[in-house]
Amino acid sequence: MSERPSQRSAVEPFHVMEVLRAAAARQRSHGDMILLCVGQPSTPAPRAALDAVHAVLETDSLGYTEGDGIPQLRETIAAHYRTAYDVPVTPEEVLVSTGSSGGFSTVLMAAFDAGSRVAMARPGYPAYRNTLQALGIQPVEIDCGPNTRFQLTVDHLAGAHAVAPLDGVIVASPANPTGTIIEPGELEAIAQWCDAHDVLLISDEIYHGISYGAPAQTARRFSRDAVVLGSMSKFWSMTGWRVGWNLLPEALRRPVDVLQTNLAICAPAVSQHAAVAAFSPEATAELQRHVERYAMNRDLLLRRLPELGIQSFAPPDGAFYAYCDVSHLTDDTTQWWAEVLDRTGVAIAPGIDFDPVNGHRFVRLSFCGATDALDEALDRLVAVI
Amino acid sequence: MSERPSQRSAVEPFHVMEVLRAAAARQRSHGDMILLCVGQPSTPAPRAALDAVHAVLETDSLGYTEGDGIPQLRETIAAHYRTAYDVPVTPEEVLVSTGSSGGFSTVLMAAFDAGSRVAMARPGYPAYRNTLQALGIQPVEIDCGPNTRFQLTVDHLAGAHAVAPLDGVIVASPANPTGTIIEPGELEAIAQWCDAHDVLLISDEIYHGISYGAPAQTARRFSRDAVVLGSMSKFWSMTGWRVGWNLLPEALRRPVDVLQTNLAICAPAVSQHAAVAAFSPEATAELQRHVERYAMNRDLLLRRLPELGIQSFAPPDGAFYAYCDVSHLTDDTTQWWAEVLDRTGVAIAPGIDFDPVNGHRFVRLSFCGATDALDEALDRLVAVI
Repeated sequence: MSERPSQRSAVEPFHVMEVLRAAAARQRSHGDMILLCVGQPSTPAPRAALDAVHAVLETDSLGYTEGDGIPQLRETIAAHYRTAYDVPVTPEEVLVSTGSSGGFSTVLMAAFDAGSRVAMARPGYPAYRNTLQALGIQPVEIDCGPNTRFQLTVDHLAGAHAVAPLDGVIVASPANPTGTIIEPGELEAIAQWCDAHDVLLISDEIYHGISYGAPAQTARRFSRDAVVLGSMSKFWSMTGWRVGWNLLPEALRRPVDVLQTNLAICAPAVSQHAAVAAFSPEATAELQRHVERYAMNRDLLLRRLPELGIQSFAPPDGAFYAYCDVSHLTDDTTQWWAEVLDRTGVAIAPGIDFDPVNGHRFVRLSFCGATDALDEALDRLVAVI
Repeated sequence: MSERPSQRSAVEPFHVMEVLRAAAARQRSHGDMILLCVGQPSTPAPRAALDAVHAVLETDSLGYTEGDGIPQLRETIAAHYRTAYDVPVTPEEVLVSTGSSGGFSTVLMAAFDAGSRVAMARPGYPAYRNTLQALGIQPVEIDCGPNTRFQLTVDHLAGAHAVAPLDGVIVASPANPTGTIIEPGELEAIAQWCDAHDVLLISDEIYHGISYGAPAQTARRFSRDAVVLGSMSKFWSMTGWRVGWNLLPEALRRPVDVLQTNLAICAPAVSQHAAVAAFSPEATAELQRHVERYAMNRDLLLRRLPELGIQSFAPPDGAFYAYCDVSHLTDDTTQWWAEVLDRTGVAIAPGIDFDPVNGHRFVRLSFCGATDALDEALDRLVAVI
C-alpha cells in the first residue's frame, strides 16, 4: 500500500488523549491522580436500564434492529419531547443513531456536499471541525469570546454569511467546553435566520437535562427544519453504550436513514433496549440525583476558583465544565497541563482541543466526578499555584 | 433548510429492506412467512458472552473505552489469528470498530481521497459501493461471473489497472451474496500484486469461521500491508452488538485511530466485553454447532435446488448464502420476489442489491435459519413454480 495516508485523514488528535495517557501513568506511579479532564459521568447507566439489559439478554436474540431504531425507543424519545419541552414530536422524526457522533456524521453527509460551508463557534467540540474536514466540508469557525458567553449569535451568522454564504450552522447549548446555554430568544432568532436564509441549523443538545438555572430550550421548538442531535451519554449517564438520536426535517429523513443503513446498519440493539428503560420515572429520579451532585460541585468550583486567581470563566449554565482563562498562570496550557499533573496529580484539559487560536490561554475543568475529589484537587492546585 | 439533500446522499436503499417490510406484513396477515432473505444468524450471542454481560453490568460503569478498543479484546483478537490461522498478529495491529461497517468507512477515509479509484467484484455487498460513493471515492465494479466463481482475480485487477490506475481493491471471501471463497493461491497473488502496484488491499473476512470445505485464508498471511476487516456478527452470532475490528498496516494505524475517535469515540463498551467472552472455548463449541446446522441446511438446499430447475449457482464454500440464476423462472427478480412471497409466504432477496447490471436474473437464498423451515420453504416453492 501507499505509505501516505489520505489528505482528509490529516485531522488533529485530541490533546486530551495525551493527558489521559499521562494521567494513567501518574496513577500507576503515584496512586494519587484526580481526573478533571473527562467529559463523562463516573456513574453507570441507571438501575432500571441495567435491569432491562439483564432481562433482554434472556428474551431477545439481539440481532440487527430496524435501521432507524427499535420502534419503542423512537416512541419513547418522541414522548420525551412532549414531557420535557412541551413540544410535539412524532416517532417518524426520530432516527436512533450510534451515539450522537454516529448521527452527526451521517447528517453531514446527507445534507452537505464537498465544499459546503458550515459555521460553528470557536471554542467548540473538536470533533465538529475534524468530522467536517474529513468529509470535505469547510468549517467556518467564528471566534466567540466572553462577550457572547462563547456562543454564536445571529449577528455572527449574518456577518459570516455576508462574506461568503453559509450552508449550515452548528450550535451547542449547553456547550462543550464552556457549559454556556444560548438564551431561548437568541436560539429562536438563530433558527428563524437559518430558515430565512436556507441554511441548515444543526443543534447539538447532548447536554440537555444538565443545567443549573433555566433549562436549555430545544431548537425543535423554533423550527421544524432544524436537525437536533440528542444523546443518552450525558444526562442518562450512558456514554459507553453508544446511543443517540437525530430529530430530522422531512427532506433529510430518507437520505439519513439510507446512509445510516449503509454506513452503520443500526445502533447497538442491547443499548437501545437499555435506553428505553433509562427514560422510566425511577431512572429519571436516579439521574436527577447525579445532576444535584454536579450542581454542588459547580458551586464548590465557582466558590474556590478565585483562590487560584481565576476570575474569568464562562458561567457554566449547564453541562459539567468550566472553561477558565489561566493566562495569569501560564502562556501555554498545551504544555502547562503536564507540569500541573506532575506537581499535583490533577489532570486538566488544555484549551487547544477546543480553540486552536486562543485555547493556549484556557483550561477546561470538568466537575462531573465526586465532590470530595474535586475539593481535594482544588486544595492541591491552590497549594502549588 | 434547503429541501435538497446532498448529492452524495443519493445512494440506493437496499431492496431487501422492502422485502423485509413486505415479509412482516405477510406474517401479520397470514402467519406463515419464512425468511430466506436475511444475512444474520437467528441465534443469540453465545451463552458465555451473555453471562459476561450479566457480570460486567454490575462491576463496570461502562463508560467510554479506549478509542481503539479495550486492551483485553485487542489481545484476544490478536491471539485468535495465531489459533485460527497460525499467523502472528500483535494487539497493536488490531483496532476494534463499531461493527465491521464502522471500521470500513473509517479505513476508506484514512486511506483514500475524493476521486480515488477502488475496485470491487460485482456482484458484491451493496454497502461497499454506497459507502465509497458517499465519501466521493469512485467504485470500479468488475463484472465477475461464474467462470471465476463471482470473485476478483489478479487478471481482473491487472486489466482494470491498465485502463486507469487503481488506488485500492476490496475482496470478500467468503463473499456476500455468493458464499464463494478465493483460493489461497489466488488471494496470495492478489496480495502480492497489490503490494507491487502500491494498491491498498482491503480484505473483508467477516464470514470467516463459516465454511464447508477448506477454511478461508486471511489476507494478513500474505501481506502486512493489507487491511483486514473482521466482525463478531456472523460466526459469533452477534450482529446487533455492533463489534468488529480492523487489522491495520502501520501507516494507517494512527490516522484510523484519530478518525475513529472523532467520528465514533469508541465501539460499544458492553459489546466489547461480550466479545471477549465469545472467544472462549465453551462459546466456540456452541458456535461450531451453528456452523454444523448451516452445513446441514446447505446440503439440503443444494440437494433440492434442482427441483426448482435451478442448476446454476455459485458453490457456497462459506457464509450462508446461495446466489442462484433463476432466469428460467423470471426475467426480473426485482419484481418477482413479491409474487413469490404472495404465493408461498417465502421471502427471498432479489439480486439487484448485489449487482445492478445482471442482478435481475438472480436471487440470494440465505440458509442460516432452522432446517425444518428451510425444507418447508423449498416444499412451497416447488409446489408453485
